[in-house]
Amino acid sequence: EEGATGQVRRMLNRGLAAVDVAQLLESTPPREREQLWAMIEPELQGEVLQYLVDDIQTEFLGRMSVEQLLSISRQLDTDDKADLLQRLPNTMIQHVLAGMGTAEREQVEMVLAYPEDTAGGLMDTETVTIRPEVSLAVVQRYLRRHERLPESTDTLLVVTRRRELIGHLPLTRLLVSDPDITVREIMETDLVTLTALTPEEEVASVFERFDLISAPVLSIDGKLLGRITIDDVVDVIREGAGHTMMSMAGLEDDEDTFAPVLRTGRRRAVWLGINLIAATVVSLAIGFFEDTIQRIAALAVLMPIVSSMGGIGGSQTLTVMIRGIALGHVSRANLRWLVVRELLAGSLNGVIWACVVAIIAIVRFEDLQLGAIIALAMVINLMTAALVGTLIPVMLKRLSIDPALSGGVLLTTTTDIVGFVAFLGLATAFYT
Amino acid sequence: EEGATGQVRRMLNRGLAAVDVAQLLESTPPREREQLWAMIEPELQGEVLQYLVDDIQTEFLGRMSVEQLLSISRQLDTDDKADLLQRLPNTMIQHVLAGMGTAEREQVEMVLAYPEDTAGGLMDTETVTIRPEVSLAVVQRYLRRHERLPESTDTLLVVTRRRELIGHLPLTRLLVSDPDITVREIMETDLVTLTALTPEEEVASVFERFDLISAPVLSIDGKLLGRITIDDVVDVIREGAGHTMMSMAGLEDDEDTFAPVLRTGRRRAVWLGINLIAATVVSLAIGFFEDTIQRIAALAVLMPIVSSMGGIGGSQTLTVMIRGIALGHVSRANLRWLVVRELLAGSLNGVIWACVVAIIAIVRFEDLQLGAIIALAMVINLMTAALVGTLIPVMLKRLSIDPALSGGVLLTTTTDIVGFVAFLGLATAFYT
Repeated sequence: EEGATGQVRRMLNRGLAAVDVAQLLESTPPREREQLWAMIEPELQGEVLQYLVDDIQTEFLGRMSVEQLLSISRQLDTDDKADLLQRLPNTMIQHVLAGMGTAEREQVEMVLAYPEDTAGGLMDTETVTIRPEVSLAVVQRYLRRHERLPESTDTLLVVTRRRELIGHLPLTRLLVSDPDITVREIMETDLVTLTALTPEEEVASVFERFDLISAPVLSIDGKLLGRITIDDVVDVIREGAGHTMMSMAGLEDDEDTFAPVLRTGRRRAVWLGINLIAATVVSLAIGFFEDTIQRIAALAVLMPIVSSMGGIGGSQTLTVMIRGIALGHVSRANLRWLVVRELLAGSLNGVIWACVVAIIAIVRFEDLQLGAIIALAMVINLMTAALVGTLIPVMLKRLSIDPALSGGVLLTTTTDIVGFVAFLGLATAFYT
Repeated sequence: EEGATGQVRRMLNRGLAAVDVAQLLESTPPREREQLWAMIEPELQGEVLQYLVDDIQTEFLGRMSVEQLLSISRQLDTDDKADLLQRLPNTMIQHVLAGMGTAEREQVEMVLAYPEDTAGGLMDTETVTIRPEVSLAVVQRYLRRHERLPESTDTLLVVTRRRELIGHLPLTRLLVSDPDITVREIMETDLVTLTALTPEEEVASVFERFDLISAPVLSIDGKLLGRITIDDVVDVIREGAGHTMMSMAGLEDDEDTFAPVLRTGRRRAVWLGINLIAATVVSLAIGFFEDTIQRIAALAVLMPIVSSMGGIGGSQTLTVMIRGIALGHVSRANLRWLVVRELLAGSLNGVIWACVVAIIAIVRFEDLQLGAIIALAMVINLMTAALVGTLIPVMLKRLSIDPALSGGVLLTTTTDIVGFVAFLGLATAFYT
């Protein structure tokens, strides 16, 4: 083997942590990525795989044999196994499940039974449970019979004979307490529990609110199914926040930064098409004033100022509202306050900047009337932007449409139309 | 006391968790918020305070007496104490510090010595340390002398006599191991450590990469200073992701959703002003073609389509790049690949949608030449958008300017100017 290649191979297999190898793969264009992936020893591929974005996972998994998939999945926790399986075609999932031992298959199938974006899909089925009537000394002896405890175990779950959860015993509490007292005497009973169908956003918010490290997941009839740990929740939190930003540009949040041209082009084409429809509608609105523009071409020179200021003002309101809704701050009770605040702030800025724009217009075209018209159009447009920016996300939310995805197009289409129509309409009225 | 008020008071002080009270306050307009705050019992205010956004914290803290501040800070961890103090004016900080006991003051001063957004500013100084030569049985006896262990303690830090960190012993490992062996024999030595000046974004990325629950913080000379726990890191992760989204609209990420009109108006005015400068420059560019527009008003009707499509295409590229840079995917080595990919994807979409727009223009104005001109202008603009959208964030990053904050204005100004000049310039050339 040549020196350089050998060195890369050594670095991938021994020098770097799996998470860093994943980072390196994500930072590499497709062709070189393939070559790097082929250099990683099969027994390390599974660990690397789970750190990769969905797009790349799907690509690599799609080319593996059942044996490879089985050997990779053997190294993973139940929830990570289920995650990987979910990226495969259905027949392949069946083949891999068939190759697992009965106990393993049953555990994976239990997690697979729940949608990926619920507590059930995130949970791990490995839990350490204890009974309330035993003493802490017994608990300690029981634990010592384990070779290791499941990752991120911070608390032991106290269950009845029928696997009903009745409390938990944090390890920190177990360690500072008298070995002779029983679990029941010192267990904590203010349990934060999740049910298997709790959506992942809610899981994340519960973890954030109560500063949890792990939380038990229960079935609908109150039986303990498994537990969710903070490391899986951190991924949800980060993806959730990135999701809004990407949505606002019409992008998928689990996209490979180095997606090939055709995939990139196809995904973006849809968004450009939607925006073209919006732009065409705006253009139709301008079309009504073709005659006025023909007479006063200065209008065409100034009109982008009116629409762009409306778009910027509206986007600020929209972003504040999208964040406010995501944080749960916005409700029917305070919406009116927000509309009034935005309208007042919008008018304030409308008046200030309208004066500046009026002066620019007057100086440039030596036309007082034109200055007055553009100022009025700007105030109208910034107030519309405030109103629309506040109401659009609330309405979309009520219709269960992601406000981050569609809010921007709706907003700028509205502010463009109102801006152009106000400006050109006023001009038509005043100059004829 | 009246029924309704009494009920609210009871709910605030006994019914709801502190984090929910904070959420309620954040969801309430300023005047009602004051009233609710006044109803919360002083001994609960401290806990509620730490869950509030900076804006609101500063407001409430600014009106408290030194005694109130001291009694509130007494209930908090060292890092949270330091956080609160940092929102106060300097003289007030000195008064509060003077009121603390010596040990407490020294701990807070140690955290205050580091910027808020570094590992030192995030850390807690309460740690449980053990010595390598003792047996696990001794460790267990030592722990039992504690009344409680610091929150989120998942591992015990093993230090030398001179407080140099040499390993750690996870509680899960302590509990499954033979009590007779020594700490040194089973401690883990693959330590992930942070130094006090590590920036908080890097802290977050280390926690994410290694799935940590806590990590020790060292001074520059390798002495143990304290530890950071995952709950503080989760806040950093969430704020970081929200920061990008807010920055893209020129907003502060720790803004109160219900900030009063004047504060809202003032903050947004700056952003509108910057955008007005950009819009004026664009308008100047259009001004060069006033004569052409006067002759062919159809150009003014169609020109927003060219600029808007360029802006949308460019924003998609820009968002992908901003995310790629934040995730550490973009480097000098793969930048050229990204530019080529974006240029190809941009041309592909440019050609597709240019044809559609050409057809719209030809049908509407019955002018084949106009269709050809707008199609060509669109291809030029979408390719420019791809190029500029890729390079702007990289350049800004190199100049240490936040690409999320300034990238959008620079991009749309460029695509507007290129779009208008290409379209109107081609028209001027072809029609004369």
